[in-house]
Amino acid sequence: MPVSFESDYIAGAHPEILRRLAETNLESLPGYGADPYCESAKKKILEACGLEQGEVEFLTGGTQANAVVISTMLADHEGVVAAATGHISSHEAGAIEYTGHEVLELPQENGKIRPETLRRFLSDFFADGNHDHMTFPGMVYLSWPTEYGTLYTKEELEAVSGICREYGIPLFLDGARLAYGLMSRSADLTLPDIARLCDVFYIGGTKVGALCGEAVVFTKGNKPKHFLTSVKKRGALLAKGRLLGVQFDALFTDDLYFRIGRHAIDMAERMKEIFRACRLTLYLESPTNQQFVILENERMQAMREQIAFSFWEKYDETHTVVRFATGWSTTEEDLAALERVCAIQEESRE
Amino acid sequence: MPVSFESDYIAGAHPEILRRLAETNLESLPGYGADPYCESAKKKILEACGLEQGEVEFLTGGTQANAVVISTMLADHEGVVAAATGHISSHEAGAIEYTGHEVLELPQENGKIRPETLRRFLSDFFADGNHDHMTFPGMVYLSWPTEYGTLYTKEELEAVSGICREYGIPLFLDGARLAYGLMSRSADLTLPDIARLCDVFYIGGTKVGALCGEAVVFTKGNKPKHFLTSVKKRGALLAKGRLLGVQFDALFTDDLYFRIGRHAIDMAERMKEIFRACRLTLYLESPTNQQFVILENERMQAMREQIAFSFWEKYDETHTVVRFATGWSTTEEDLAALERVCAIQEESRE
Amino acid sequence: MPVSFESDYIAGAHPEILRRLAETNLESLPGYGADPYCESAKKKILEACGLEQGEVEFLTGGTQANAVVISTMLADHEGVVAAATGHISSHEAGAIEYTGHEVLELPQENGKIRPETLRRFLSDFFADGNHDHMTFPGMVYLSWPTEYGTLYTKEELEAVSGICREYGIPLFLDGARLAYGLMSRSADLTLPDIARLCDVFYIGGTKVGALCGEAVVFTKGNKPKHFLTSVKKRGALLAKGRLLGVQFDALFTDDLYFRIGRHAIDMAERMKEIFRACRLTLYLESPTNQQFVILENERMQAMREQIAFSFWEKYDETHTVVRFATGWSTTEEDLAALERVCAIQEESRE
Amino acid sequence: MPVSFESDYIAGAHPEILRRLAETNLESLPGYGADPYCESAKKKILEACGLEQGEVEFLTGGTQANAVVISTMLADHEGVVAAATGHISSHEAGAIEYTGHEVLELPQENGKIRPETLRRFLSDFFADGNHDHMTFPGMVYLSWPTEYGTLYTKEELEAVSGICREYGIPLFLDGARLAYGLMSRSADLTLPDIARLCDVFYIGGTKVGALCGEAVVFTKGNKPKHFLTSVKKRGALLAKGRLLGVQFDALFTDDLYFRIGRHAIDMAERMKEIFRACRLTLYLESPTNQQFVILENERMQAMREQIAFSFWEKYDETHTVVRFATGWSTTEEDLAALERVCAIQEESRE
Repeated sequence: MPVSFESDYIAGAHPEILRRLAETNLESLPGYGADPYCESAKKKILEACGLEQGEVEFLTGGTQANAVVISTMLADHEGVVAAATGHISSHEAGAIEYTGHEVLELPQENGKIRPETLRRFLSDFFADGNHDHMTFPGMVYLSWPTEYGTLYTKEELEAVSGICREYGIPLFLDGARLAYGLMSRSADLTLPDIARLCDVFYIGGTKVGALCGEAVVFTKGNKPKHFLTSVKKRGALLAKGRLLGVQFDALFTDDLYFRIGRHAIDMAERMKEIFRACRLTLYLESPTNQQFVILENERMQAMREQIAFSFWEKYDETHTVVRFATGWSTTEEDLAALERVCAIQEESRE
Repeated sequence: MPVSFESDYIAGAHPEILRRLAETNLESLPGYGADPYCESAKKKILEACGLEQGEVEFLTGGTQANAVVISTMLADHEGVVAAATGHISSHEAGAIEYTGHEVLELPQENGKIRPETLRRFLSDFFADGNHDHMTFPGMVYLSWPTEYGTLYTKEELEAVSGICREYGIPLFLDGARLAYGLMSRSADLTLPDIARLCDVFYIGGTKVGALCGEAVVFTKGNKPKHFLTSVKKRGALLAKGRLLGVQFDALFTDDLYFRIGRHAIDMAERMKEIFRACRLTLYLESPTNQQFVILENERMQAMREQIAFSFWEKYDETHTVVRFATGWSTTEEDLAALERVCAIQEESRE
Repeated sequence: MPVSFESDYIAGAHPEILRRLAETNLESLPGYGADPYCESAKKKILEACGLEQGEVEFLTGGTQANAVVISTMLADHEGVVAAATGHISSHEAGAIEYTGHEVLELPQENGKIRPETLRRFLSDFFADGNHDHMTFPGMVYLSWPTEYGTLYTKEELEAVSGICREYGIPLFLDGARLAYGLMSRSADLTLPDIARLCDVFYIGGTKVGALCGEAVVFTKGNKPKHFLTSVKKRGALLAKGRLLGVQFDALFTDDLYFRIGRHAIDMAERMKEIFRACRLTLYLESPTNQQFVILENERMQAMREQIAFSFWEKYDETHTVVRFATGWSTTEEDLAALERVCAIQEESRE
Repeated sequence: MPVSFESDYIAGAHPEILRRLAETNLESLPGYGADPYCESAKKKILEACGLEQGEVEFLTGGTQANAVVISTMLADHEGVVAAATGHISSHEAGAIEYTGHEVLELPQENGKIRPETLRRFLSDFFADGNHDHMTFPGMVYLSWPTEYGTLYTKEELEAVSGICREYGIPLFLDGARLAYGLMSRSADLTLPDIARLCDVFYIGGTKVGALCGEAVVFTKGNKPKHFLTSVKKRGALLAKGRLLGVQFDALFTDDLYFRIGRHAIDMAERMKEIFRACRLTLYLESPTNQQFVILENERMQAMREQIAFSFWEKYDETHTVVRFATGWSTTEEDLAALERVCAIQEESRE
């Protein structure tokens, strides 16, 4: 089995999470999220968010969280605004459209929508007297970190949030990899900042050490009525809700969520040094746990035999963009192996 | 914490499953079900089903499995036929309708559709020249065991299966509690029988010792094309597919699935004896792990203080039907406690 | 071409409607319902309903009206309660389910839900602590006249309306054949009564002399926001909205709508006399324009060669229920022909 | 009432159509499209298309036709490819997404997708090993004429059609304004060409002289099974199907459809001369009945007081793109009025 940087979900659960699942395994608990571990996890999450009135609900995965949140919060005539590179725009097999709502795609730069792009779009839409035949923008969706590992700055998120409030449109932040944004060395946003600036967001578990699970946070007393029934209706309600409760309770005990984030960031920074040393070209500057590299196709094939990573997109006829991700399970040994492979490749090129 | 018979999903995972999750936890594995544990589990399941050409896919929960299977197998103009008491008819918050398809409800007896009821419905439907304005029956859904713990006999399932084939309509069996049917002392159907008679069915994990997970078996080379994409589109694809693969691999190693089933049945039979001894009235004769009892409302309140069970439905103004379920975690001590509570209740009545 | 009682939509438009379409044909008018004829028609309809605050919107057909109204007024977790014989329950090919909502079917008598049946259903639903996994009743749907030509009395509609208000659930009345109810000799409900007792209803045009069109009336300032966009989204917005506006303007000028209703009722009463004279058995007592007769299968075949009518349902092995409908275009000559055919049939039997 | 060029649906029906509706009005006909006029119209349309095996179905409007065709022909995992300016992409309020399918938008030029853009998109999609998490392209949608009045040439449509066949993806042509394309002086495509090159297309009636109605043509024996039931399920089935049959029968008798097209084209060419004479700037060169003009905002306001036209889009801070459309009802007098208004405007500017 080769060393793998294929994704941040290549390993099972963080050992601390697994330990808690085992310790609580025999307890008789009510189903569907009514157990004390869900309750405790919700409380800890709200505390970490600095929220007094917020509400937390657990779902199983990221696409599911996006589809459930968006479809329960939009009105019938509304769609969701997203970057053309947003996860919901292109990598969820049409999950949002399946709920009957359009994704209104905006141009982006390195995965981010510029605040002025959003403002112009909304202003043009509502200025146009003919918009009754068009899908109304009813929510703004951002990923943080984005699909390219980049981060909106505090100033940018404040700008986007301000525009949303001006137009009365909720801001939804996809935090599938939230820990890697919060712990990034260049992040200037904290969890309470995000809770303050967004109307709803989720704290990703699947990609941050859990077996599965995302914690959706409604920050403004805006959880849709009878949300549990809507979750059930979408086939998204786990009978053993404890599976999510125990995991998030562990993640928000002793800062485990943040420690996992920091570890992956440390590993990613080391990885960038290795890439630089081997004169590999980064596709863009990512301050989080996903690193995108442009490889000559031949070199890519050769590296692939020794190290696992992900195809991202075609760069040109002879080059490919690939992704290397770190996670809770990335070790010094993994990096040493990467360094060896890169060095050999580098030598053989010379 | 009182002794609980509230459901068959009150405890975590069977220890054997948890052990395998821990053992494989650090392995680097591909996501989305492409790992070797999913592959191994699929192979073992097909073997247990006596299928050579079948295909297995894992989903997270029962409602999700029902919605995904039904909506990907029905044509646009079709709906699914089910007993009025079927899980999809009444206890899934409209999950099938959410996919745009109607549930065509048939009268039932103790949770079962009589074959002749089905035959008459289909024959009347297709005889009627005006059926173009009606939803076409495009699939038949059965639960086995049913929502009332009852079982179709081999003769009955053969009859239903024969009718379905006559009309060219697939037969789908909801096996959320399949193990408890197969291990029931009165069952005359085996897993290979079910695989032979049904076009698609699922083997429930959530209610038989797993943390979550259902294994859908397509028995006739009839898995919908690009099923993975349809699963993704419904927000039902787990990134860490290993969570399902490892669990089902454990369940189908050394007959664990069947052993769990047998244990729960043994416990349920003992429970029935206790009820009989205390002169409690069974709502119906259930040969599986769910037992339905008619309790006077006062007695119900009194018992509830000492033992946990489920409200099922109102029986009349002064009585209620309640459900007691056994599972992998039900112990002799639990039954002893139940016996004590029933005996005290019985005494105090006299 | 044989004389036809096949339905109330066998002929084109009432001549008065056609005349108005021709007279206004060359006028340049704005599209999508923003023309003065739509405006005028809405005003006349509200007046006829005795409504000051109501809102009227035009749609093309009955199934469309049902699907648009129900899906825009229900919340995500809700379904619509209807008689098992309701049009939306069985004769709209799953149009409501297509919008993602369940139809909750109640037992009926001659097409009508008894108020106490509704009350018990709602009371049981909300009493049951487990209803979070079930579709919430979010609207009550009635047809008036029903699919069997019967009518709720004023007392019954008041009871149903009262129950709906008690539970905070809107009452929706399908008035595809409203004129035939209002003009029935046994009706004790007026249009203002209906407007007062229902939250939303529609005034059928297609079956009452129009080429197409139904006028949906929201009686309580409860029109869904951005309704036009929702109508567009469902492919239900006519570019030449005038087609609906001019027709309804004509129908509500000089009581044309009511005159058409009265004529059809007069014809239906005469038809009942003919049936009685020929000793044909009515399936039930219908006070409106649809009459249901039980025919021996052989007699049915013989009659069919001379008169057109509709198959309704199988009665038993040797009998069939068929429907005869009158409408604006039914003439004395049509009835005379029916009388001749019935008389010959009667004689040949003797 | 000012002279209007607001759209091609400002007037009622072409007098010839109205005459036929009146002549056939009293005939007793079966409903739901089973009448002889629908049959006759279908036959004439197939003949005009040079099709022997084709099938024709009538729907009420353009958005409805798009939604019904696309949603009944796509598989679950598929979406429809369209120009970013396509009607389904932006002006149908999310009607395609409402059916659960994504619109995959491609860059365009003057409303047209370049064949090489389509080829690259499809080739990249299917080359990428990760496309299982993305919506599959399952149909290509073109408008002809496009939303900007432009036309794909024969060479271009052949190229697009060839690419579609290579990838096994049906080509769907939205012909809401088909007559204006076919009769354009620069068109090199005939109706039989379109029938040969497309898998499905529709012949627009609403914008070409009918009160409502679009004729969908399936050219390759590829009409979805039980299409009528799917139409009913979408609330799109007219009870008085004759309304569509009689109109299309009239449109395809004595070349009325083409005569209407030619008249509007003649009027549009004259309109272009007027614009040129008044030195108005065309936004683009449109060879069909819609003309797009860039107006200074002040001039636009002034003209609007005397002539009706449509806002199209903002051009820059001081200019707006507006649309002038001709149709069957455009007269010499209308053009004379336009000429006067433009001339006055022109003078006042000098």
